[in-house]
Amino acid sequence: MKGLKILKGNIIFTKDPNSFVTLENGYIVVKDSKVLGTYSSLPEEFKNLEIIDYKDKLIIPGFVDLHAHAPQFENRGIGLDRELIPWLETYTFVEEDKFKDTDYAKDVYSRLANSLKENGTTSVVLFSSIHKESTKVLFDTMHKVGISGFIGKVNMDRNCPDYLKEDTSKSIEDTIELVKEYSKKYPLVKPIITPRFIPTCSDEILLKLGEITTEYDLKVQSHLSENKSEIDWVSKLHPNTNGYGMVYDKFGLFKPQSTIMAHCVYSDKDEINLLKEKGVFVAHCPGSNTNLSSGIAPIKEMMDSGLNVGLGSDISGGHDLSMTKVMVLAVQLSKMKWLENNRKGSFLSTSNVFYLATKGGGSFFGDIGSFERNYDFDALIIDDSNLTNLDLSLEERLQKFIYIGDDRNIVNIYVKGSKIK
Amino acid sequence: MKGLKILKGNIIFTKDPNSFVTLENGYIVVKDSKVLGTYSSLPEEFKNLEIIDYKDKLIIPGFVDLHAHAPQFENRGIGLDRELIPWLETYTFVEEDKFKDTDYAKDVYSRLANSLKENGTTSVVLFSSIHKESTKVLFDTMHKVGISGFIGKVNMDRNCPDYLKEDTSKSIEDTIELVKEYSKKYPLVKPIITPRFIPTCSDEILLKLGEITTEYDLKVQSHLSENKSEIDWVSKLHPNTNGYGMVYDKFGLFKPQSTIMAHCVYSDKDEINLLKEKGVFVAHCPGSNTNLSSGIAPIKEMMDSGLNVGLGSDISGGHDLSMTKVMVLAVQLSKMKWLENNRKGSFLSTSNVFYLATKGGGSFFGDIGSFERNYDFDALIIDDSNLTNLDLSLEERLQKFIYIGDDRNIVNIYVKGSKIK
Repeated sequence: MKGLKILKGNIIFTKDPNSFVTLENGYIVVKDSKVLGTYSSLPEEFKNLEIIDYKDKLIIPGFVDLHAHAPQFENRGIGLDRELIPWLETYTFVEEDKFKDTDYAKDVYSRLANSLKENGTTSVVLFSSIHKESTKVLFDTMHKVGISGFIGKVNMDRNCPDYLKEDTSKSIEDTIELVKEYSKKYPLVKPIITPRFIPTCSDEILLKLGEITTEYDLKVQSHLSENKSEIDWVSKLHPNTNGYGMVYDKFGLFKPQSTIMAHCVYSDKDEINLLKEKGVFVAHCPGSNTNLSSGIAPIKEMMDSGLNVGLGSDISGGHDLSMTKVMVLAVQLSKMKWLENNRKGSFLSTSNVFYLATKGGGSFFGDIGSFERNYDFDALIIDDSNLTNLDLSLEERLQKFIYIGDDRNIVNIYVKGSKIK
Repeated sequence: MKGLKILKGNIIFTKDPNSFVTLENGYIVVKDSKVLGTYSSLPEEFKNLEIIDYKDKLIIPGFVDLHAHAPQFENRGIGLDRELIPWLETYTFVEEDKFKDTDYAKDVYSRLANSLKENGTTSVVLFSSIHKESTKVLFDTMHKVGISGFIGKVNMDRNCPDYLKEDTSKSIEDTIELVKEYSKKYPLVKPIITPRFIPTCSDEILLKLGEITTEYDLKVQSHLSENKSEIDWVSKLHPNTNGYGMVYDKFGLFKPQSTIMAHCVYSDKDEINLLKEKGVFVAHCPGSNTNLSSGIAPIKEMMDSGLNVGLGSDISGGHDLSMTKVMVLAVQLSKMKWLENNRKGSFLSTSNVFYLATKGGGSFFGDIGSFERNYDFDALIIDDSNLTNLDLSLEERLQKFIYIGDDRNIVNIYVKGSKIK
């Protein structure tokens, strides 16, 4: 049968947040880019086909990073003694300005894309900078490396340094040009509407972005309720709108099932209800929420209440691109939140957080992040032989890889059925 | 001049918690095992000596891990959905029991010692298990690898599984045998008295251990106020003693300037005053405090109030041996604590936490963890060239290494002036 691929190994994935599906020495049959099925023993019809035998290695879905800032790649791990607003002003904006130079973009973005790949991120949602030409570089680079992505040119036309302040019409023109050029250019890398956040966007630009979103049927990403002083700022800028999230919604930027809001650390009940009603995806970013002293988002509660939730590395507020490191910190913080709530409810389990980093975030892209039938075959082959000599269950081996493994354990990578490493 | 060694490179260390000393393209002159001095330009008297030129690399003090459980090495990264007591019962005790077999110990301890070295830990304070023979293996292995260490055979004679419950007299005999055999056997690896924690130690064993501590002039380590249910347990076991820490003190186990207590998450004012009075070292273990849902120790406040504080990986409650990872989490949690305190006081800065991981913990060993005159020359050579293309200050480069570097960046290691890698 044409386009068929059979992989054998220790298969582990989630269908729902609360349990793992495991197949010891199991089979995944892939047809073209998609999973046809997973099997404990290989069905008769596939018996004459060649098997790629990964032996004792783990086969898991690729990771999904719902929120990261591409031009902040070089800034990972510096400036982390500041909070959000001074950090933006002292480190972030200064670095982003360099992306007016496309040569600089070529260098940084190619290292970023490779680093994402090496860390097993097979789908990523990226902020670019305000710069149209460097954003094109980012599209081209991500395409070359072979990872799925949504990429958004940032829009901002107020409350930022002059050197990054856009002319509103020009910002919209550039956005439309990118949307037209890149909506169909590459199979795996697509544009997304990206107002930086409410404080840096005029009503006019938000209105226009809402219109473009509808007209071109696009997805949207931005930041929401990350930090208390930011929330105060928004309420001063929009005194007649009842809440931060409502401002996005008012301008048509909470497109149902198609919007990512990073953080939501301090979203109140009304805001959470709005997020739920619109099917907004919350990108939980524990790295930056701690590094920038923002706070701990009640992510387990959000997840349990039926919100769409995924994880984000949020470089460079978060310092670490690796989604396994993001998973560990998400669990650790959820435990601290659970203590803060006097042990009411529960904290994130390993299957919870693995779900968030695969199918949870993946569902923003479509059928991604699981090995159920018709899911895109995005997969990592994990050689964990250096991590222990114990005789562990597959779940324990996966937990061990998440906690103490790193990029060296990710030996092969598939995206849409194609081996990219 | 005999025994002299001169190293050139980008030198960075702390004398106090609040600032770094940096020497760009500076010199460290080492005589035998100790630092003679650091210089911006090389003094005339040393000009004819050979220079080991590390060029653009960083030269920093080796890391000090004040608290780790050697026999839990294999358990790193599993079982982390439990709290302290069930985690001990389900995972930890079962693994520790295997160390009745010295062949098992040889295998695990040699991997542990190498992993410590590769991660740049040059001084470590270890719990062994209850097993005398395997504890000897640990002494011998650590000596071979060349790291400084205190190693303690665990004493426990109650409230633990039968297979790990010691006969009180035998436990004391074994301890004395180890103290006699290993106090002078190796230059860098020494015994330390190690009651597991109050709940697993009878009054009799604690009394005897206090006597041995005094008689042989030894150091002491144990656990303190890690978890609320543990504290309740101790107060039930010792209803007439006013507080957990007071129990150790009553038995002579808070030896001034010579005792480490891991955790101290919930130490109250009286306990903190006692720790201060006795110069007890607090081993802050953010990894296990989050993984086991213990809580966030007020470490910045402890440090500022003049307590002796250092960091511990606390494997396998903590999953990560790397002290850079421990540093990052310590800072992140101190930020969450600062928010919890409504932003009163401050959180750990990069120099604060670097101090904790070097000189702070190092002062338990002696003059260790800095490059001041007469400090032991324990040092790491850091090649950070893959971490960024930005033009950064030495402090920023160090911060970047701490946040996004790993063992691959540690290219050479010195302990007491000898190159061990």
